[in-house]
Amino acid sequence: MTETTALQDTLASIHVAVTSDPTGEVASYIPEMACVNPDKFGMHVTTVGGNDVGVGNNNERFSIQSITKVLLLARAKLEVGSELKERVGVEPSGDPFNSLVQLEYERGIPRNPMINAGAIVVCDVLVELLDDPKSDYLSFVRKLAGCETIEFDSSVALSELLCGYRNRAIINLMKGFGNIRGDIDEVLDLYYHACSIAMSCRELARTFSTFANAGSLVETGERILSPRRTKRINAVMQTCGMYDEAGEFAFRVGLPAKSGVGGGIAAVDPGHYAVAVWSPRLNSKGNSVAGFRALELLTDQTGRSIF
Amino acid sequence: MTETTALQDTLASIHVAVTSDPTGEVASYIPEMACVNPDKFGMHVTTVGGNDVGVGNNNERFSIQSITKVLLLARAKLEVGSELKERVGVEPSGDPFNSLVQLEYERGIPRNPMINAGAIVVCDVLVELLDDPKSDYLSFVRKLAGCETIEFDSSVALSELLCGYRNRAIINLMKGFGNIRGDIDEVLDLYYHACSIAMSCRELARTFSTFANAGSLVETGERILSPRRTKRINAVMQTCGMYDEAGEFAFRVGLPAKSGVGGGIAAVDPGHYAVAVWSPRLNSKGNSVAGFRALELLTDQTGRSIF
Amino acid sequence: MTETTALQDTLASIHVAVTSDPTGEVASYIPEMACVNPDKFGMHVTTVGGNDVGVGNNNERFSIQSITKVLLLARAKLEVGSELKERVGVEPSGDPFNSLVQLEYERGIPRNPMINAGAIVVCDVLVELLDDPKSDYLSFVRKLAGCETIEFDSSVALSELLCGYRNRAIINLMKGFGNIRGDIDEVLDLYYHACSIAMSCRELARTFSTFANAGSLVETGERILSPRRTKRINAVMQTCGMYDEAGEFAFRVGLPAKSGVGGGIAAVDPGHYAVAVWSPRLNSKGNSVAGFRALELLTDQTGRSIF
Amino acid sequence: MTETTALQDTLASIHVAVTSDPTGEVASYIPEMACVNPDKFGMHVTTVGGNDVGVGNNNERFSIQSITKVLLLARAKLEVGSELKERVGVEPSGDPFNSLVQLEYERGIPRNPMINAGAIVVCDVLVELLDDPKSDYLSFVRKLAGCETIEFDSSVALSELLCGYRNRAIINLMKGFGNIRGDIDEVLDLYYHACSIAMSCRELARTFSTFANAGSLVETGERILSPRRTKRINAVMQTCGMYDEAGEFAFRVGLPAKSGVGGGIAAVDPGHYAVAVWSPRLNSKGNSVAGFRALELLTDQTGRSIF
Repeated sequence: MTETTALQDTLASIHVAVTSDPTGEVASYIPEMACVNPDKFGMHVTTVGGNDVGVGNNNERFSIQSITKVLLLARAKLEVGSELKERVGVEPSGDPFNSLVQLEYERGIPRNPMINAGAIVVCDVLVELLDDPKSDYLSFVRKLAGCETIEFDSSVALSELLCGYRNRAIINLMKGFGNIRGDIDEVLDLYYHACSIAMSCRELARTFSTFANAGSLVETGERILSPRRTKRINAVMQTCGMYDEAGEFAFRVGLPAKSGVGGGIAAVDPGHYAVAVWSPRLNSKGNSVAGFRALELLTDQTGRSIF
Repeated sequence: MTETTALQDTLASIHVAVTSDPTGEVASYIPEMACVNPDKFGMHVTTVGGNDVGVGNNNERFSIQSITKVLLLARAKLEVGSELKERVGVEPSGDPFNSLVQLEYERGIPRNPMINAGAIVVCDVLVELLDDPKSDYLSFVRKLAGCETIEFDSSVALSELLCGYRNRAIINLMKGFGNIRGDIDEVLDLYYHACSIAMSCRELARTFSTFANAGSLVETGERILSPRRTKRINAVMQTCGMYDEAGEFAFRVGLPAKSGVGGGIAAVDPGHYAVAVWSPRLNSKGNSVAGFRALELLTDQTGRSIF
Repeated sequence: MTETTALQDTLASIHVAVTSDPTGEVASYIPEMACVNPDKFGMHVTTVGGNDVGVGNNNERFSIQSITKVLLLARAKLEVGSELKERVGVEPSGDPFNSLVQLEYERGIPRNPMINAGAIVVCDVLVELLDDPKSDYLSFVRKLAGCETIEFDSSVALSELLCGYRNRAIINLMKGFGNIRGDIDEVLDLYYHACSIAMSCRELARTFSTFANAGSLVETGERILSPRRTKRINAVMQTCGMYDEAGEFAFRVGLPAKSGVGGGIAAVDPGHYAVAVWSPRLNSKGNSVAGFRALELLTDQTGRSIF
Repeated sequence: MTETTALQDTLASIHVAVTSDPTGEVASYIPEMACVNPDKFGMHVTTVGGNDVGVGNNNERFSIQSITKVLLLARAKLEVGSELKERVGVEPSGDPFNSLVQLEYERGIPRNPMINAGAIVVCDVLVELLDDPKSDYLSFVRKLAGCETIEFDSSVALSELLCGYRNRAIINLMKGFGNIRGDIDEVLDLYYHACSIAMSCRELARTFSTFANAGSLVETGERILSPRRTKRINAVMQTCGMYDEAGEFAFRVGLPAKSGVGGGIAAVDPGHYAVAVWSPRLNSKGNSVAGFRALELLTDQTGRSIF
């Protein structure tokens, strides 16, 4: 039995296991996301050797939301070096993912780029350095995904822009501390558009396979990021990528990963594969219930994790 | 050139690099630790294949202090299963290592077993379940280290017991919340004795090689912990082991590790090796300056990390 | 109609109003206090002119608990001057009455002497300066109350000492910051005995009439405290005396006051009178429901408050 | 010697005492306030009997800034009853005057109307209920001050509006919690205009004399507020009016008061007089150094305070 066939069987059995007893609630704070079918489930693995295996709704696009934060960070690392560290930390936050408390105690320096405040600072960096940050970022994501049809969902972006008072509080607080240089509306426009990108599990797995492949595209071998920067992105994902469940996820799954309130999770086994999973029902921490469980089964059944 | 020779060369070059320009201060809150020679440096690697390589003062014993927390957790996991999770979390604390703030907000449940509060709860578990917890724990450490001469340093334990008002505040707060069952003095006695254990880098590397070897002793193959529990211990170490520098350490080194204020750090590359390093000068976060740097050079030069 | 007769009528009408529909729960954390009759109600006014008027169970003794903090502060002010300010603040805490959070942020300096931490520091001062602090303090209270039969209730003190893990956490934390000089057990012994004193509303009103009378005993005119110190004690009571309801109490009643979990409240209208009220049922903030309401009616009906 | 003459002598001696050794810094965050002469000092007393006594620059106008919060509250109390309490508390904040921490923990309900967040909610109430809130508010202040020439300083308001990122963070956070109903820009426009009003000590003392006079204008006897609401405004001022020095101010001065970063303080001795003092140099808590000291000397020398 080939690796691909074995993996296909594993994914099929996981698919059955995690969809038999659905729990959790779909994120409902914007109408565009609330109306998604809660029982969707997709999962897709792309290995660094180029194998591609998926199950369920793995070709259906959904709103990647916070998963975009990893890609924003990657894009920023092409432009800036260690100076980013003076404006965003790399430590876990130990607090709900959008808390203002630590941000105030630490005088406008977000704990890490995986929380809203940190990703907004990364957007501020991109707004400052790029001529047309939105289209530049979209091109970058398309290149990693190997797909030119990926798009922003402007209605999602606009909905979030209009009701996002908390993020507006965060960016104003950081601006008060001098850690936002650009225009608030322009920075938030980039941030919400980046979150609104719609991708399928297949496209996300392809995108994240670059992080599993030391920074080079799996398909062509083209280097996008240095191995050192790739390692650092994986480290930040692992430490800070799962909101207030980073520890629980390390404990049960053991892979660097990033989740989004759209129900997606993208994870990386460095040197081996990337995996994306999607199921819209969320637990109380904002992570996909079935997605979390599916990744736990994957590392249990393959016997592989970073630990 | 054999693996051993290459590794010996790597350690030798690291030794030179990290000791050329010493910075940082020795922990001075108890006299027994303040009088250590600040310029000591030792480093030792034990591979899962049984290779043993060290440099500098790698055979000299020092106070392992908080490194003991990993071993306390391992010992407790031999006795209890998931019920431990109701009394100690696995999430990073996002706060200085001895803060009472989160402990109060979270009603006496420590964030993880790598902070003082969490390790004290682990000691409470051991006090409840073991007939003679101190001698049982010492036997456990000796077995992992493969050395019967390892001892508590009672003068260090006593010093810390007498001046440890903050830990006494922590345990009383947890007792008030019902998360300590045993006698406060007995629990603290175990805790401080466990911290006072003196070991060399060679002994620590041997001890932690069990975590690199999926829970089996490298020397004999005897299973101590299941692979699943070993993976979970490594995950907790990685997420929470370096005080408020867990993210920075993941970013720069990329290995599960635990440090102590005695200047030691023990780290694990699962499936490959364990490494212990010792240098008493600490940075402002309480981690060994030269030890941190030595591990960064090790993963840079070997090109291996979990990310 | 004389002032006394009018006041008697006022108290009688208040008595009826506040006892008609009892709500709230008796403090139950120690058995000695849990078994009190929840429907007791007493109220007593002592004017600076020497008038004495009471209703209900105004002659029955109850555990004064935190009301003792005002008297501890008064006793300490006989011994120390402004140096107390370096060890205890005078600002409201803005947090539940026994929180450790602010204490940690402010490095062991309690916000004010009306919270547990602050009263414990005041006890530490008395332990340091007095030969026999417990009997000295009891004599002081007896003198203010004009009654030699007032006693500690040692069974209450012992119960609280045994279950008081949070206060033990607080004192250890402060000791860790260097803000406790004496022996922890001796300081807590004084604190819990001071809280355990049993007094009637009549005795409390007499005691607090000294604060209404610029520091002199109403009966004899003997000066106990200077007018300046008396004013400052009233100010601290007004700002910090009602736990997390200081503002609500100022808003609705408008008198400096101190409450205790035994259900007592003592209040002062400087230059006019002191009043004590007792009813064991407490609201969620730990203040007597009927006592609070009785004082609101008193200032409404007399048209007198400090505002 | 008449009361007026005696008071004139008292103010003259205070004037000499507090201006002999100037310390503190002028607020400099907006250019319009930074360029004020730091050595200005004015003080003015208006008694409920109609006496008017002042010294120094008591007729020179300055930016009343946060003193306006008392008047905003008074204006709102003409429109709304107890429902305001569901949207703004009356408890001291125990934190710096513009902290977001408590606001987040308490889910967008400000602790009291004397901090920025609370005053902004009061403005939101006025924006909702009044046809032309800015001109209505200005008319209200003019009526209390008995002076039709009082004006907003639009350049100050505009400066603060442009650099006020923290207040914009605060209002967005509250909007996210549902505690702001109006348009953010319109509410902030009212808030900053209200803060920008320029008044002299004489005008402020006249304005606050209504709070000393149970809610009626001293000059004409016209009732503005009920005695009950006036008492409550004085209580809130006393508990919360002096930023993080409410306790220190009660301790040393003992009058309900409100300060502003323009260097003004207005205080009330209910039933007796109102006093306004102005000196632009501020202490580290944002209160006027000489103003604070002048009020302390006033209550010391007259022997009158609420305690």
